[in-house]
Amino acid sequence: MARWQPNASDRLALAALELFAERGYENTTVIDIARRAGLTKSTFFRHFADKREVLFGAGTMNELIEGAIAAAPATATPLEAVAHALGALGETAFAPARRAFVARRRAVIAANPELREREALKGLGLIRSMTDALSRRGVFDLTAHVAAELGMLAWTIAYERWCDPASDEDFSELARRALSEVQAATTSC
Amino acid sequence: MARWQPNASDRLALAALELFAERGYENTTVIDIARRAGLTKSTFFRHFADKREVLFGAGTMNELIEGAIAAAPATATPLEAVAHALGALGETAFAPARRAFVARRRAVIAANPELREREALKGLGLIRSMTDALSRRGVFDLTAHVAAELGMLAWTIAYERWCDPASDEDFSELARRALSEVQAATTSC
Repeated sequence: MARWQPNASDRLALAALELFAERGYENTTVIDIARRAGLTKSTFFRHFADKREVLFGAGTMNELIEGAIAAAPATATPLEAVAHALGALGETAFAPARRAFVARRRAVIAANPELREREALKGLGLIRSMTDALSRRGVFDLTAHVAAELGMLAWTIAYERWCDPASDEDFSELARRALSEVQAATTSC
Repeated sequence: MARWQPNASDRLALAALELFAERGYENTTVIDIARRAGLTKSTFFRHFADKREVLFGAGTMNELIEGAIAAAPATATPLEAVAHALGALGETAFAPARRAFVARRRAVIAANPELREREALKGLGLIRSMTDALSRRGVFDLTAHVAAELGMLAWTIAYERWCDPASDEDFSELARRALSEVQAATTSC
């Protein structure tokens, strides 16, 4: 497994994770985070708008998702296009080498109400990205929105399973299985 | 149409709406809100944990939703039980007499990032309430979660249509129609 080489944005997130764990979210400043990462406060604000944002990777996930949905085969159903996007996450944000970092980040967010709020808003933004990308493929608006909601639910299920230390499956595989399960469940609603 | 008689919690929300519109969310304090409502700061904190919370009615909606899902007929499908809950909202939180207030509240939230974050987190809490209430009816966990997500999407659609000044339909009727549309859309995903 290749060693993960963090860039400035990841270094800031790692530093923030350490500091939030050591002294708590409230007692950590942006300057503390930048200093721990060996960077400056202005570098921090080039990457993130505020302290809450440091664990939410500067919007790159939305572009990745939209690009992958656009690049799915023309014959793909809406949920197959979503599966294509979740597969792309399994090679980038949720690549095997990032698993320990992501699981740690997840635990810190779960423990902090402000970070949970930011994560909830980010989730809505990701659903919007999926909906818009599906609409651009010609999917009817409401169908696009429903597929995006189901995709987000499958994403959440796969993410929880992937972060479980007892699992070593690829995120893409977990996401594909969760999507099938979610789709099957719609027929019992 | 009966005149709506606001209680302390509604009076605080009304005062907050006025002040956020007049001087902005950032420039309004909890003391300002309590004073405008003719109440004290300690009354404010008996109803709400912080300033963000004042527009989110102290958690009563979760109890209402859970109660209505529990009270749906035993033969109801998961989405029929959800429709029963949305119908209950149409007689309380989204009763016709509250429409102007709710539409104004919605516009204020849409304009403020902090309030949008709180609303996003509240939405996740409502999905959790619906999921748990359906599970208690014996619905399989994943099916309950899917029905709750679809229910929340229908809720959002109905809420947007209900807040539109050009519409005068009951929330319950809009919710029932949105649920049918969402359920039909799942078959095209």
